[in-house]
Amino acid sequence: MAKKRILTGDRPTGKLHLGHYIGSLRNRVKLQDEYECFFIIADLHTLTTRPEKTGELAGNVRDLVFDYLSCGIDPEKATVYIQSEIPEVAELAVIFANLVSVPRLGRMPTLKDVMRDAQIKVPSYGLLGYPVLQSADILMVKGELVPVGRDQASHIEITREIAREFNKLYGEVFPVPKALIPADVGTLPGIDGRAKMSKSAGNVINLSDDTDIVRKKVMGMFTDPNRIHGDEPGEVKGNPVFTYLDVFAPDSAIPSAMEQVEDFKERYLKGTVKDVEVKEFLVEVLEGFLQPLRAQRKKYEKSPEIVERVLNEGTKKAKEEAQKTLTEVKRAMKLDYFK
Amino acid sequence: MAKKRILTGDRPTGKLHLGHYIGSLRNRVKLQDEYECFFIIADLHTLTTRPEKTGELAGNVRDLVFDYLSCGIDPEKATVYIQSEIPEVAELAVIFANLVSVPRLGRMPTLKDVMRDAQIKVPSYGLLGYPVLQSADILMVKGELVPVGRDQASHIEITREIAREFNKLYGEVFPVPKALIPADVGTLPGIDGRAKMSKSAGNVINLSDDTDIVRKKVMGMFTDPNRIHGDEPGEVKGNPVFTYLDVFAPDSAIPSAMEQVEDFKERYLKGTVKDVEVKEFLVEVLEGFLQPLRAQRKKYEKSPEIVERVLNEGTKKAKEEAQKTLTEVKRAMKLDYFK
Repeated sequence: MAKKRILTGDRPTGKLHLGHYIGSLRNRVKLQDEYECFFIIADLHTLTTRPEKTGELAGNVRDLVFDYLSCGIDPEKATVYIQSEIPEVAELAVIFANLVSVPRLGRMPTLKDVMRDAQIKVPSYGLLGYPVLQSADILMVKGELVPVGRDQASHIEITREIAREFNKLYGEVFPVPKALIPADVGTLPGIDGRAKMSKSAGNVINLSDDTDIVRKKVMGMFTDPNRIHGDEPGEVKGNPVFTYLDVFAPDSAIPSAMEQVEDFKERYLKGTVKDVEVKEFLVEVLEGFLQPLRAQRKKYEKSPEIVERVLNEGTKKAKEEAQKTLTEVKRAMKLDYFK
Repeated sequence: MAKKRILTGDRPTGKLHLGHYIGSLRNRVKLQDEYECFFIIADLHTLTTRPEKTGELAGNVRDLVFDYLSCGIDPEKATVYIQSEIPEVAELAVIFANLVSVPRLGRMPTLKDVMRDAQIKVPSYGLLGYPVLQSADILMVKGELVPVGRDQASHIEITREIAREFNKLYGEVFPVPKALIPADVGTLPGIDGRAKMSKSAGNVINLSDDTDIVRKKVMGMFTDPNRIHGDEPGEVKGNPVFTYLDVFAPDSAIPSAMEQVEDFKERYLKGTVKDVEVKEFLVEVLEGFLQPLRAQRKKYEKSPEIVERVLNEGTKKAKEEAQKTLTEVKRAMKLDYFK
């Protein structure tokens, strides 16, 4: 039986951080064994919120591939490619644009969120159409499953509507994809205690941060704001230091890491352990996770031609799929004038 | 000095009629000698109002080329090509989408007109973005002049804004095109007396109509509705039979055609000529114009491979321009990752 096909990816907006790893990368490393995976580097999507920042894209694309490879994404298993290198994506977006209404797009809850976060007062036409371009990304490779956070599920709903509408008007070409929402993935809080680690909030630990920076960031982490001294009882729940430990200790190679965390929790609640001790342990746990990634990254940074090869080969493979799909699309629409 | 470049074209929605000839084709036949002309067959634009009608496009494209060639558009001088065969147009549209706001597009007066005429209650995303795709058409070939009717001038204004915004953000790539609004071209009324000849109104004389149909349509034409009998004085002004004569008699090969028209007008005002006499003369004038077109058309219809060749060569040439422009665009935006 053929493997099902997955499409997911990232906008190349900078280095990836622990939040990305927990929210998606960790999952992708598993998915690439079970599914036929396409990981898109969605550079055109960055234009919807910051068209003036294209000068950063080339570097960000490179960093993203370094991060992917370091985490264990294997280009032999998954296809990593650049959106803007596939003209068929734009062609499909222009066609799909006619299958979804303006008010439907205007009602997307994500639109308001993005505008607020990026401090955009008036949306560009491209920003309103983000879900249309995303639908083209997904359907271009005939993606059947799309791993997304719960907040992005509404985008997949648009993709499903477009796929159905296309099939109804022109004949069955597209699968109607499903969102694959990981059940157990919480959002990793920022080091400042805010609910979500995000680059724009400036509260991240990057996968590529070196040991000194990780230590410095952890030591400055938000804990229980009501606990002034190490001999006072403190809160464990909602305390990001413990949240990180809960997330990273289970996979740690440190002997009895989980028991250690439980011990810290008990003592923290009683007021018999200082923040700094718990933080030292978190540094140790994080370093255990990050050091192998850094080693991998160093290897790739020494041979940047690997990145170019990964992208070239991935883009070539994605392009083959895109051409196949667009040929079908044009045949179904009877736009294949020169048969 | 290099010739200036012109971009104009048609949506392939059916056979062209006298209104098209007077409004644009006649002018294009002249323009192709003075300018470097690109005539786009804008099939993707038809999706904005009738995505369900793509089955008609192949035939309409063929008819359009027959009409072009019959009228004297010369593929040796002008480049005739199909929009959907140029993926770079879609790529550019996706980029331009980020340089124009949703409210700006929502305020286009043409949007309301199109929605009313096509009985569209809720605009699709594609319909809202019509001027964005049109801007991509124009700027893809670096069009400097765009012959348009007065009602379309607002679209060219959007194109100018997009060109300026792109040049400001990424560096000078595009000319800021100008609308070329023919000063003396009135709109040809329909045979039913309505202000505009248009396919959707069903009041047209097609360039490809045969003699019998032309005669039948002219004989059934709206004249002065208050004139019941041929011996009553009638109105010449606003009478479409005389409007057609004013438009077509000056180029007629019939000896003293203009004097004949003046004579008819005088007698019509006095009530000494019947409608049918004037209409017979109009048939004669129109046939003098249409017969050579029909002869040309018959020649091309016998060799349909000519149409294919014209489109193939035009599309190839347009594609070369498109690739050149997109390379410049990507370099300016620093999206040229694989230099």
